[in-house]
Amino acid sequence: MQGLDIPDAAISGIDILVSEVGPRDGLQSVSQIMPTETKKAWINAEAAAGVREIEVGSFVPASILPQLADTAEIVAHALTIPGLTVAVLVPNMRGAVAAIEAGAHKITLPLSVSETHSLRNLRRTHDQVLAEAKEIAGLIATLPAERRPHFEGSLSTAFGCTLEGPIPDAQIARLAEGLMAAGCDEVGISDTTGYADPAAVKRLIALLHGVVGVQALTGIHLHNTRGLGLANALAALDCGLTTLDSSLGGLGGCPFAPGASGNIVTEDLVFMLEAMGLRTGIDIDRLTAVRDILCRAMPGEPLYGFIPDAGLPLGFNTAGARRIKEAS
Amino acid sequence: MQGLDIPDAAISGIDILVSEVGPRDGLQSVSQIMPTETKKAWINAEAAAGVREIEVGSFVPASILPQLADTAEIVAHALTIPGLTVAVLVPNMRGAVAAIEAGAHKITLPLSVSETHSLRNLRRTHDQVLAEAKEIAGLIATLPAERRPHFEGSLSTAFGCTLEGPIPDAQIARLAEGLMAAGCDEVGISDTTGYADPAAVKRLIALLHGVVGVQALTGIHLHNTRGLGLANALAALDCGLTTLDSSLGGLGGCPFAPGASGNIVTEDLVFMLEAMGLRTGIDIDRLTAVRDILCRAMPGEPLYGFIPDAGLPLGFNTAGARRIKEAS
Repeated sequence: MQGLDIPDAAISGIDILVSEVGPRDGLQSVSQIMPTETKKAWINAEAAAGVREIEVGSFVPASILPQLADTAEIVAHALTIPGLTVAVLVPNMRGAVAAIEAGAHKITLPLSVSETHSLRNLRRTHDQVLAEAKEIAGLIATLPAERRPHFEGSLSTAFGCTLEGPIPDAQIARLAEGLMAAGCDEVGISDTTGYADPAAVKRLIALLHGVVGVQALTGIHLHNTRGLGLANALAALDCGLTTLDSSLGGLGGCPFAPGASGNIVTEDLVFMLEAMGLRTGIDIDRLTAVRDILCRAMPGEPLYGFIPDAGLPLGFNTAGARRIKEAS
Repeated sequence: MQGLDIPDAAISGIDILVSEVGPRDGLQSVSQIMPTETKKAWINAEAAAGVREIEVGSFVPASILPQLADTAEIVAHALTIPGLTVAVLVPNMRGAVAAIEAGAHKITLPLSVSETHSLRNLRRTHDQVLAEAKEIAGLIATLPAERRPHFEGSLSTAFGCTLEGPIPDAQIARLAEGLMAAGCDEVGISDTTGYADPAAVKRLIALLHGVVGVQALTGIHLHNTRGLGLANALAALDCGLTTLDSSLGGLGGCPFAPGASGNIVTEDLVFMLEAMGLRTGIDIDRLTAVRDILCRAMPGEPLYGFIPDAGLPLGFNTAGARRIKEAS
C-alpha cells in the first residue's frame, strides 16, 4: 500500500528506529494530566535530541483517557517538526477517522491475542477487531495516496496474558494473518504484560516472519516489568527487527513497585544500541536532559533508567552524537 | 590440572551454573557487618533453593574488609552443605594459602586488565600479579590431588576502566595468556565497571576463546550499573558461556543512585534462564524468599530485582522448580 511519506530523516543514516511511546503509553498510565504545552515541549526536545518517531497520543474518548484528550492538537503540533514521524494509537474505526483527519503519519490498532483481554480492554471479540481493521484499511484505501497513513496492527499480550496465561502459537499466527488480510501494512508485537523472555521473543518473531513475511513485521513493543526488557530487545535485534518502542524514563505500564518499571527505558535502550555500534541518530546526553521536563511537570512521578544516574562510560562516544554535533 | 572434586550435584542436571556472589561481592560493598550466623543462614537458604555454587567470602586482611573477616569460618560451614561448590576470592598468595587451608573448592585471583586500576586496587603491576598467580599455581601443584582447588584468574575491568577508559584487546589477550601460562585452570572476565554492552561481550569472549581455548573461559561476572546486565548475560550465553555470577537482590558494586544496582540480580537472572528453558536447578520462589534474611539483617539496605515485585507470569513453571519438588 502506498502511504503518507514517512519523513526522509526518520530512516536515513540510522540502523535502528527508536520509537518513543512515552506521550501515549507513558501518560495514559499516569493519573496526572500533563498540560498540552508541556507535551509539546517534551516532543520538541526529544525530536531535537534526534528521536525520529514519536507515538504522540491515542484517539480514545476523553471520558476514558482524559490524559490524552488533546491528541489532535498534539498531532498538529508534532507535524510541524521536520523529519519526525508522528504516530498514534487508535482503538477502533472512530479513532482511525480522527487520526486520519489529524494527519498522523502512522496509526496502530491493537489486537489482543488473548480474547479474554480483548473483551475486557476493547470490549470486542477477535473477529470484531479484525472486521474493524478491514474497515479502517478500506477507509485508508479511499484516500489520495499522499494522505494515506501507515497502518499497523499490533498483536498485544503476545507473550501471555495475565488473565489467560500463554496464548497458543496457532492463535497468534491466525490473528497476524487476519490483520494482514484485513489490509494492515504490517503487524507489530507487544509484550503488554511483561511476560516475554529472549527465547520466546526469538520464537515468536520466527513464527510470524514465516506467516506474514519478514517485511511485514519490523517492530516490537516491550515492557520491563520483569527486568528482561533490554535482553528481549537484544533478542529482537538478533531476529532482524529494526524498530523498538520505548519510553523516556520508563514511564508507562503498570508498575507494581519501585524498580518494576513499565516500558523499556529510552535512555538505556539508546545507550545499549549506540554502545553496540548501532546508529540511532540520538544524542544520549540531550535525550537524558529531556527528563527535566517530565520531572518538573509531574513531581513525585518515578522515572526509571540507569544511564541518567550512572552516566556514560569514560571515553564513550556515539556515532549519533557525533553526527548531530557535526550538523549543528 | 586435577583438582578438588567439585560436588557432582553442582553440575548434574543443569544447563547453566548460577554462581551467587552476594556473600562476597555484595557484603564487601555494604558498610554494615553481617553477623556470621546470618551469613550461614543465607548460604543455607540459597543452597536449599537449589543454588550450586556460592562465592562465600574473600581472604583479605580484616583491616581492609572487616565485613569478610569471618571468611574461614564461613567456608568451613559451607563445606558441610552437600552438593555446594564453595568459592572464594583471594587477592594474593597469602589469601590463597588461607583459602587452601580452609578447603575452598574454587579460588579466584583478580587481575585488573587496567594497570592503573591494578596499582590502585591491589597495589601491584600486571607482572607482579602474574608472578603471584604462578606462585599460587605452584603451591596448588604441591598438594595431593584431592586437595587441589580449582584456580581461576579473573580479568577485571575487562570492558573498560573508570580511570583508563577502554583497554586494548591485545593487552587483555596477553594477560589472559599470562594467567594460563602461570598455571590457572581457567580465566574469567569481569565487567567491574558496568561498561559492557552485548556486542563488546561477544567480541571479547570470541577474542579470548581464540587465545586460551573455549574450555578455559566458561564464566563471566557482570554488573548492572547501566542496566544492560541481563542483555550482556544473554550475549554471553550466545557465546557458549555456562557460568554466570550474580548477587541476591543485586547487592554489591558501587550504586550511584537508587536503581543503579551493582551485580546482576540472581532472582531476575534465574527467571530469565528458566523462562528460556535453560535449567538452573533453582526454585525461584524459594530463592526470592531468601531476601527476607537480608532485609531483616540489613534494614535500610536497598535490594534490587524485578521478579520479587512483579511475580512470575501466570502459568509459569520451571524445570528447576519441578525437579526440586519431585525430589523433596
